Amino acid sequence: MRNQWYVAAYGREIGRELFARTILGESLVFYRTTSGRVVALADRCVHRRYPLSESRLEGDTIVCGYHGFTYDQGGTCVFVPGQARIPRTARVASYPVVEQDSFVWVWIGDHDRADPSSIPRAPWLDDPAYTSVSGMEPLAARYQLLVDNLMDLSHETYLHGGYIGTPEVANTPITTEVDEDRGIVYVSRHMADAECPLFYAKSTGIEGRITRWQDIEYHPPCLYLLHSRIAPVGVLPNADGSDPGGFHVEVVYAITPETENSTHDFWAVARDFALGDHEVSDFLAENNRTVVMQDVVALNLLEKVIATEPEGYQELSINIDTGGLAARRILKRMAEAGAAPARPSEAVPS
Amino acid sequence: MRNQWYVAAYGREIGRELFARTILGESLVFYRTTSGRVVALADRCVHRRYPLSESRLEGDTIVCGYHGFTYDQGGTCVFVPGQARIPRTARVASYPVVEQDSFVWVWIGDHDRADPSSIPRAPWLDDPAYTSVSGMEPLAARYQLLVDNLMDLSHETYLHGGYIGTPEVANTPITTEVDEDRGIVYVSRHMADAECPLFYAKSTGIEGRITRWQDIEYHPPCLYLLHSRIAPVGVLPNADGSDPGGFHVEVVYAITPETENSTHDFWAVARDFALGDHEVSDFLAENNRTVVMQDVVALNLLEKVIATEPEGYQELSINIDTGGLAARRILKRMAEAGAAPARPSEAVPS
Amino acid sequence: MRNQWYVAAYGREIGRELFARTILGESLVFYRTTSGRVVALADRCVHRRYPLSESRLEGDTIVCGYHGFTYDQGGTCVFVPGQARIPRTARVASYPVVEQDSFVWVWIGDHDRADPSSIPRAPWLDDPAYTSVSGMEPLAARYQLLVDNLMDLSHETYLHGGYIGTPEVANTPITTEVDEDRGIVYVSRHMADAECPLFYAKSTGIEGRITRWQDIEYHPPCLYLLHSRIAPVGVLPNADGSDPGGFHVEVVYAITPETENSTHDFWAVARDFALGDHEVSDFLAENNRTVVMQDVVALNLLEKVIATEPEGYQELSINIDTGGLAARRILKRMAEAGAAPARPSEAVPS
Repeated sequence: MRNQWYVAAYGREIGRELFARTILGESLVFYRTTSGRVVALADRCVHRRYPLSESRLEGDTIVCGYHGFTYDQGGTCVFVPGQARIPRTARVASYPVVEQDSFVWVWIGDHDRADPSSIPRAPWLDDPAYTSVSGMEPLAARYQLLVDNLMDLSHETYLHGGYIGTPEVANTPITTEVDEDRGIVYVSRHMADAECPLFYAKSTGIEGRITRWQDIEYHPPCLYLLHSRIAPVGVLPNADGSDPGGFHVEVVYAITPETENSTHDFWAVARDFALGDHEVSDFLAENNRTVVMQDVVALNLLEKVIATEPEGYQELSINIDTGGLAARRILKRMAEAGAAPARPSEAVPS
Repeated sequence: MRNQWYVAAYGREIGRELFARTILGESLVFYRTTSGRVVALADRCVHRRYPLSESRLEGDTIVCGYHGFTYDQGGTCVFVPGQARIPRTARVASYPVVEQDSFVWVWIGDHDRADPSSIPRAPWLDDPAYTSVSGMEPLAARYQLLVDNLMDLSHETYLHGGYIGTPEVANTPITTEVDEDRGIVYVSRHMADAECPLFYAKSTGIEGRITRWQDIEYHPPCLYLLHSRIAPVGVLPNADGSDPGGFHVEVVYAITPETENSTHDFWAVARDFALGDHEVSDFLAENNRTVVMQDVVALNLLEKVIATEPEGYQELSINIDTGGLAARRILKRMAEAGAAPARPSEAVPS
Repeated sequence: MRNQWYVAAYGREIGRELFARTILGESLVFYRTTSGRVVALADRCVHRRYPLSESRLEGDTIVCGYHGFTYDQGGTCVFVPGQARIPRTARVASYPVVEQDSFVWVWIGDHDRADPSSIPRAPWLDDPAYTSVSGMEPLAARYQLLVDNLMDLSHETYLHGGYIGTPEVANTPITTEVDEDRGIVYVSRHMADAECPLFYAKSTGIEGRITRWQDIEYHPPCLYLLHSRIAPVGVLPNADGSDPGGFHVEVVYAITPETENSTHDFWAVARDFALGDHEVSDFLAENNRTVVMQDVVALNLLEKVIATEPEGYQELSINIDTGGLAARRILKRMAEAGAAPARPSEAVPS
């Protein structure tokens, strides 16, 4: 899926050390300039393909660790050993970068199709009205398996029982909507009277059963938002939309393909309560990481199943899969559009 | 080699825990029902291919650990999450199973060709007149290498010297017979006056040289029997077939392909003497496992040799290979027959 | 690159234990006969392909560890189990061997094209006027990457900074000459006034800046010589070629492909000073091994880069690569000649 924005890292991961990450099969090196801007370049010296990430930052240039070829922020070579003349073609690809909502987004595709305004938002992660915990887990499974996983939360009951899963999740039907124009998939599950999982009981302090809403908003390919609302049973938002009786948790995933069979699984949990409470932060961080790792273990297993299964194996889908199937359809369309040459009207982003 | 019975496990391996084993490249999950019957199902949920062996047994049903799809003993889905209607096609394959002679046999192939009466027998393993020790070692080598190994025992002298090998094994010529109709290969080596290997000296108590008979009976593809008779030199069976002066050891191998390049190597040693003697049992178990592991190490090595050798490498065969070559011929014939569609006359086993 | 001599081992590696090494994808077994001659045979029994290196030496014969097939020094089978007649075709390939300059050279190719006089020399390694240290490191990278590395020493400045690299190496232009008839590549870099790397300061005792000459002489495919001369600044050889004021280090590499993607990296450092000084020997051995390992780490990384890069990736070459490109050209020519059938005029080496 080329010609798309992907989350490459958290802003906090990129500093004055060279940082390597592979995205969509392309090896990239990142660093922050002395003025604080994030730079992304192809991680391969033009000379003898040495990884620039194994090299040295000198001011705002990278000095290749093998023969000293030196590149500036734009990827242009500014020094070669043993001669004064620098070949005109000595440059590595640079990648458009936008730092936003705590993420470093990178554009994988044709530069002239990169439109920063099309990057979907996750404002809670960088908003003082919320407190966030976050992390990234490497997944040895194809990206589609994580999309499937997140679009169908009925798995919480089985895979995450005792953590975020209760019987009501699997048993409550979902509603699915697709905004075909903007390419967004919405899946909602509103449980009016549900058991309160420990994850929420301990962090909100609610005792007894809850009203639990899960509103998914997936912006393919990379950004997945789960608007989660918890309240004591029967406590609903006001007619004007204000919601003083509800606890809001914004669960954010950025799903970035590393290779065809591996994925960077970025996860973040932002809350609008217990803002300064480190104990709650620590509990949510550890608990959510445990849940993410349960998914990682399961999806890594599925990847191995796929690797050995006969050609043409058919899955069986039911109602719970409506959102996931819509996501697959949009991803397929995007992959085709991304692979196609840019149309003239797309050449200059508005 | 489809359309054959294979040993999947010892009966003692299958209980109320889900048990995974791959046979002929097919992933199976096994369990014992509350009434004690062994069930074998395809180890892959029809929904999103999650391994059922990573799931939970609930009574006699399996509840998938990912989204809760629930299967009965026949593989029929009896519950799906979030909806009442269960799709008609929601079922996983079930496999015919026969428990016999301490083994769990499973039929890999078309159900209507499965004939339990065609399973070869190893009655000593489940007979109070014998005491057995047994085990299973995973082999990272193709099944044919183990067949070759077992059909030509002259390797005992070299690979198992000091254990079961003495010079006489390699030096004594064999006789080979093939029952083409029933598809059985017989290889015999009768040593009239041989050194007694420690394996037999310690377990039988015989001092001095022995008469040692090795009578192989191979029922391709899976069951290999070695009727081993040891007696003091010159002590032969009576004319009526009774043999009070001989010690009888029935060595049984079940050779079950896991994948094209790996094998389940089941081994058992049954004896008709020192029946209740735990010391003898422990000695034979440890000693035989050592011998099996010598084979495992050697065959794993051969598998690696094959993986890197040029196409069309030719082996050289001599007299000792007559049995192994006959086995290969029958296995080839079976593979062709197993791959062919069932003939009408075979459709209903008699 | 068949039909070439390769260094298979140091002479000291081969004794009365069977020794396995793969060269150009061919598995070989080596041993020294009771009379001290090195024998090289194909490491695969003709019977069931068991590695002879896993077997037993009995006098000057190898007894296969699987079924006892026994081979003499020429690879002829002299014993098989269970029968007196030995098949006429029972022989494993033997390889021409020459022991010279501390190395065991082996000819991979047609026997009648093997000409011992064409083996390039490294006499310092076996000359009492020099003291040597040496070793071999396995490289998980294709052979060409090591040739590239060694032909362009400007990498010393960056990859081996603090060891043998100083700024002058990368900054001083090279001269390159190719002897097309003999197939030898010469690359020279003469630094008139250079920083003295610790490697030479500690071993020669020179204080202050040095005149440093690096004269490479590469005999494709296997032997690489670096004639290194160090002297205080301005101290040059006499007009008659004598050079009492210079310190001479002969750095020798033998570059032997193991497989398409791995290499035996033999390295040796011979010096004509501090001959009996163990401290200098230990320092040079450890220091040079560190430098070799820096290359190994870098080249293993490059091999991985190549494995994942898109087809048709283009490198960019500059002046420093002249020697490496000449080497590639000669190697390509040799590969083509080695793959071609022998011409009649080549059939009998002169």
